[in-house]
Amino acid sequence: MTLRAQRVLMEADAIVYDALVPQAIVDMGRRDAERLSVGKRKNCHSKSQDEINRLLVELGRQGKRVVRLKSGDPLVYGRAGEEMAALREAGIAYEVVPGITSAFAAAADFDLPLTLRGVASSLIFTTGHDLTGKVLPDWASLAVSGATIAVYMGRTVAASVAERLMGAGLAADTTVAVIENASRADRKLFHGILKELPDLQARDDLDGPVMVIIGEAVAGANFDKSEPLSAFHAGTPVRETAGVE
Amino acid sequence: MTLRAQRVLMEADAIVYDALVPQAIVDMGRRDAERLSVGKRKNCHSKSQDEINRLLVELGRQGKRVVRLKSGDPLVYGRAGEEMAALREAGIAYEVVPGITSAFAAAADFDLPLTLRGVASSLIFTTGHDLTGKVLPDWASLAVSGATIAVYMGRTVAASVAERLMGAGLAADTTVAVIENASRADRKLFHGILKELPDLQARDDLDGPVMVIIGEAVAGANFDKSEPLSAFHAGTPVRETAGVE
Repeated sequence: MTLRAQRVLMEADAIVYDALVPQAIVDMGRRDAERLSVGKRKNCHSKSQDEINRLLVELGRQGKRVVRLKSGDPLVYGRAGEEMAALREAGIAYEVVPGITSAFAAAADFDLPLTLRGVASSLIFTTGHDLTGKVLPDWASLAVSGATIAVYMGRTVAASVAERLMGAGLAADTTVAVIENASRADRKLFHGILKELPDLQARDDLDGPVMVIIGEAVAGANFDKSEPLSAFHAGTPVRETAGVE
Repeated sequence: MTLRAQRVLMEADAIVYDALVPQAIVDMGRRDAERLSVGKRKNCHSKSQDEINRLLVELGRQGKRVVRLKSGDPLVYGRAGEEMAALREAGIAYEVVPGITSAFAAAADFDLPLTLRGVASSLIFTTGHDLTGKVLPDWASLAVSGATIAVYMGRTVAASVAERLMGAGLAADTTVAVIENASRADRKLFHGILKELPDLQARDDLDGPVMVIIGEAVAGANFDKSEPLSAFHAGTPVRETAGVE
């Protein structure tokens, strides 16, 4: 977290926070600050975006100093655009405090270069989800050689992502790094190749937020602390079979 | 800057820093820490990347706690991949501390959403420079509808970038925001449309680092504090003509 984020948090009268924000950070504000959880954990939307916008406006109108606390950076997949529009419409002043988005947190956790001279000169942030949460947006054409791709919330769409990228011409053996719980103590790194990415969807041992990073820039990283991405290679089923043989 | 970056900085025996790092941050380390500037300001490369790699290895071998201090995030356009490889080869342990990359700093400075539901679901980081600093990499195919594009170090290649994007089918009136000196006190916002972007190259009033953000997600931002991107619309020449008439 940044010094600036810490400062505004300490000054807040009210803290409106997402489910993904660690409790230790929510606790950092003043002891007497009002704390309002607005959910947004998958399958557990305790408040709609409209309700959150109205809540922020209402708290602002009460003259409170409000911190809208999110995990990552608010301007990328953080709905800050919608919340800023609601505040502007209501005539309530605000400022945006940048944060470490989860692709960068994940990359720093495990020393994964996102660009690399002569290998990757572009980086693409994308998501498997569109507006309705159902269909993948048409970003397969982004899969050009030499770009690193970071897929936010990519677990449940891993198979479609792999299919689209390979369909667009990305090599089936392109390096894939999958990071669960980036920046948390229980973070985990998985590695494999693009054609194994669909296996991610079948894994039921991951329940934290997942970041998928695809591209040869990460190929040179140190995967010593990682587990294989593909359950097929992951050990347990193979050892069981070995016992039978 | 992050709490974690501040902590490692306070513990450093040696601080190896780029020219773009504000002096106030370089000064934050211990008073007796060794401070080594390695340049990297445009047209003023005081040390080559190989020399920097060797310096880091040498300081590490002396048993010093070394901070390699960069502006932004080290894993994107920060050459961290090359420096990590050199350290690994020399058997020197390191950790990566993430930072706020300049696209996010710029966006937060001026409330520019980088993704927006129903408008932009992807975000592309790219650069006008390739390995030799001379030719543009082939990323024009990335210009699909609905993606926000952040061009790092984009000033001297503004005309080529605009030409390529329009050639790939991006509308000439797509919103463009240009941020000079993101996250600094003297930061400045310019706004315009894609077909005006080439004018950026001709402007001699900008000498700080420039971030170019292209896409409709930023169209809804508050441009009250901005100046026109195009010098043609910037006022002075028009007023001069008005005086003659």
